[in-house]
Amino acid sequence: MKPTHIEHIGIAVKNLDDAIAYYEKVLGLTCYAVEEVKDQKVKTAFFKVGQTKLELLESTDPEGPIGKFIEKKGEGIHHIAFAVEGLAEKLELIAERGIQLIDKTPRKGAEGLNIGFLHPKSTFGVLTELCENPNK
Amino acid sequence: MKPTHIEHIGIAVKNLDDAIAYYEKVLGLTCYAVEEVKDQKVKTAFFKVGQTKLELLESTDPEGPIGKFIEKKGEGIHHIAFAVEGLAEKLELIAERGIQLIDKTPRKGAEGLNIGFLHPKSTFGVLTELCENPNK
Repeated sequence: MKPTHIEHIGIAVKNLDDAIAYYEKVLGLTCYAVEEVKDQKVKTAFFKVGQTKLELLESTDPEGPIGKFIEKKGEGIHHIAFAVEGLAEKLELIAERGIQLIDKTPRKGAEGLNIGFLHPKSTFGVLTELCENPNK
Repeated sequence: MKPTHIEHIGIAVKNLDDAIAYYEKVLGLTCYAVEEVKDQKVKTAFFKVGQTKLELLESTDPEGPIGKFIEKKGEGIHHIAFAVEGLAEKLELIAERGIQLIDKTPRKGAEGLNIGFLHPKSTFGVLTELCENPNK
C-alpha cells in the first residue's frame, strides 16, 4: 500500500513559455511534452528529474482551478502526486480513515494516468494526488 | 549539470507529531528520522518515497523561516530540493544568469548535505534548494 515514488510535482505558473525557459536554461532540464488538459482548464509542460516529473501548469481560464490558485496564492508549488498501486481501493481506505477526498473514485488525468485527489484540509495543507498507471 | 533527482520536498506543518501520524497511517510511509536544525529554527521528520524524501518542518520559533511562512501562507509545501553535483560551481553559473540567490556559496543543511537556496522571486514562485552529498 506504500507509494512507490513521487510521480510528479505540480507547479502553477502564469506563463508556460517563460517558466519552461527557466527550467531548461537555469536548471538544465528538458521539456519533453506540452499537453492541454481541457477538463482542468490548463496547459501543462513536463520535465523528468530521476523518477519524478515536474508538471508546470498554466491556466487557460481564470475560473479554472489553476487560475483561481494563482489569483489567491500567486505562482508556486500546487500539488504533490504519489504513484500508487490499487488506486480505487486505496481511495476507499483513505475515506474510511476520515480523510476528505476531492475524487471518491479514480478519474483520468494527464498522460493517461488514473488519478484521485485528497483535500488539503485533511492533509495538513498539501493538495495530494494519487496516481496509478493503468498500463503497468 | 542536470539535477539527478528530487532530493526532497519540504513541507511546513504546525505540529510534527500530528503530521507524522497522517503520513504513516494514511499514506503508509515510515518516518525514519527526526532531527532538530537549530540554525533554521525547525524540527524535521523524514520519510523516503522512492528516490525522494519528504521533509516535514515544524517551527521551533515563530520568528524563524517556517514560523513566518505558516503565519503568512498556512501549512503546506514549502520548497523543492534538487540533487546536483558541483554545487558551488552551479550556484555561480546560476547567479551569472541573473537569478537571485539566497545562498551565494554552499552551506550545511540537514542530513550532512551541502545546500544552497535560490530566491522564489527568480524561480516563478518556487523556493528552490540545490543539494550535494559531500560523501559521494
